[in-house]
Amino acid sequence: MKFATVEHRGSPAAVIAVTDTEAAVLPAGFTDIESIARVSDEERLSAVHEALWAGERLQVSGLAWLPPVLRPGKILCVALNNSANPDRIMSGPDTPAMFVKPSSSLVGHGRAIRLRKEDGRVHPEPELAVVIGRTGADIAQDEALSHVFGYTVLNDITAPGLRNEDTFHYRAIHPDPGAADGVRFVESWVSYPARYKGADTFAPLGPWVVTADDVADPHALRITCSHDGRLITDDNTANLRFGVAEVISFASRYLTLEQGDVIGMGTALRRSGAGGAVQNLDLNRLGGLVEITVDGIGALANHVEWR
Amino acid sequence: MKFATVEHRGSPAAVIAVTDTEAAVLPAGFTDIESIARVSDEERLSAVHEALWAGERLQVSGLAWLPPVLRPGKILCVALNNSANPDRIMSGPDTPAMFVKPSSSLVGHGRAIRLRKEDGRVHPEPELAVVIGRTGADIAQDEALSHVFGYTVLNDITAPGLRNEDTFHYRAIHPDPGAADGVRFVESWVSYPARYKGADTFAPLGPWVVTADDVADPHALRITCSHDGRLITDDNTANLRFGVAEVISFASRYLTLEQGDVIGMGTALRRSGAGGAVQNLDLNRLGGLVEITVDGIGALANHVEWR
Repeated sequence: MKFATVEHRGSPAAVIAVTDTEAAVLPAGFTDIESIARVSDEERLSAVHEALWAGERLQVSGLAWLPPVLRPGKILCVALNNSANPDRIMSGPDTPAMFVKPSSSLVGHGRAIRLRKEDGRVHPEPELAVVIGRTGADIAQDEALSHVFGYTVLNDITAPGLRNEDTFHYRAIHPDPGAADGVRFVESWVSYPARYKGADTFAPLGPWVVTADDVADPHALRITCSHDGRLITDDNTANLRFGVAEVISFASRYLTLEQGDVIGMGTALRRSGAGGAVQNLDLNRLGGLVEITVDGIGALANHVEWR
Repeated sequence: MKFATVEHRGSPAAVIAVTDTEAAVLPAGFTDIESIARVSDEERLSAVHEALWAGERLQVSGLAWLPPVLRPGKILCVALNNSANPDRIMSGPDTPAMFVKPSSSLVGHGRAIRLRKEDGRVHPEPELAVVIGRTGADIAQDEALSHVFGYTVLNDITAPGLRNEDTFHYRAIHPDPGAADGVRFVESWVSYPARYKGADTFAPLGPWVVTADDVADPHALRITCSHDGRLITDDNTANLRFGVAEVISFASRYLTLEQGDVIGMGTALRRSGAGGAVQNLDLNRLGGLVEITVDGIGALANHVEWR
């Protein structure tokens, strides 16, 4: 099944895809994907049946898309999670490294990525995203996929200029039992991602969430990123360094994964024959339309506006 | 006025302080501070009157505290925001650098900070926290304080060992029009904070939220951190590098601040006469009880448990 969240008669509403061109509105109370994940399997099936038999029909081409989950507790993103990354990593963890984007950074399919010229270079990052269906902590790897409600597409917009601004080169305070005051200073670098990863409109998400039972293998999906019709990235989720079950299991040892949480699985970055590096695609200079596709999941398109 | 969120008859409920020892339960529907911030001033006053006249009375000493806001859209924290920091900063931004802790990291007053021995050093960070009462973006500095609902206390628990694990030394991809493939590699460091700042129980918050009208000057409050009764930090919010209005105005240029959002104003770190550096207080080695006080706002105490 494919669900989406749209603006309908001035309010958010969940819809289900009936055909490629038609969607049906779910019963009142189902206002986004989280509300669908929350109910029992029986209630969900009953709502789907009601939608298909009696729900208002909408043309997909006319939908006003909202983020599939309106207000997830967190958008947890895995950094540098592509098997092409190790070439450029001099040192780093052997486990998934993660950051959080806030729900306020979400926008739906078709909405603008809003930039300010003075914020410097801004580039897209094409990612498969997981929507958590069942809350859990310390989830075993072989149980992990049972916590997945479905899959969608994330554009993990990134502003490396703001990252550089928000990086400190500093002397970290470390304990040192041998020192008179018990501390020593260690030269360190630390970068803080709230602006460069978490600004408004930096998390386009959607359009559809495809339920897990309809995705045979989340690690065998072609993923592309194009700009104004030119193919930049042409990769496959087979190239994820850490897979969905590994990430869910590892992350949930530290952060409880809640119903509705979104996990960005990390940037697909293999260049297409003609394309450059996706990090080289400066949306703040070029403007235009970014489209990310994940085979069988959907195509997420967002254009740039300046504010 | 002083509000809190507590567990009452198995559900979250908002309470108002009546005396130092007694609280009154707000009417049904007021389940946390966000629900209090959401209503009009008239509705809030009416609810307070009803609580004071007819609400169930509870002993403060027996309250089962929950995070004042149960599920804020974000907990936005300002890094290195103390005027004592520049001594150890070799380079960094002239504006507030920020990161996000997810709502799943919150715990209330009196609840355990739960650690794993293998996660290495873990230290507290005593902070004044702001609760946003009114949603806004691009908020002017002279309007910023009107967006504050109230103030509370945050312990921004930090695991520097996990930070080191989640730091990459890598070659970042930068555009280079002069290069054959349009890119050059720049040696960089980047650290990802989801684990070291955002793990479960890494955001003790509370106990009380004092409404903004009852805080004469948020930049003249003594702030302390003690461990098992020993005073470690003795600082004052006068030493914040960027004040509340500056942080709100700057942050809201990038991230819409939503009703219920929590802002951690940055670590107070001036050592008391007897105390060491707060970064030297390894809770994972020492265990024990951490208490953070902000004068006029409250005292937040949490003990360590191992899991």
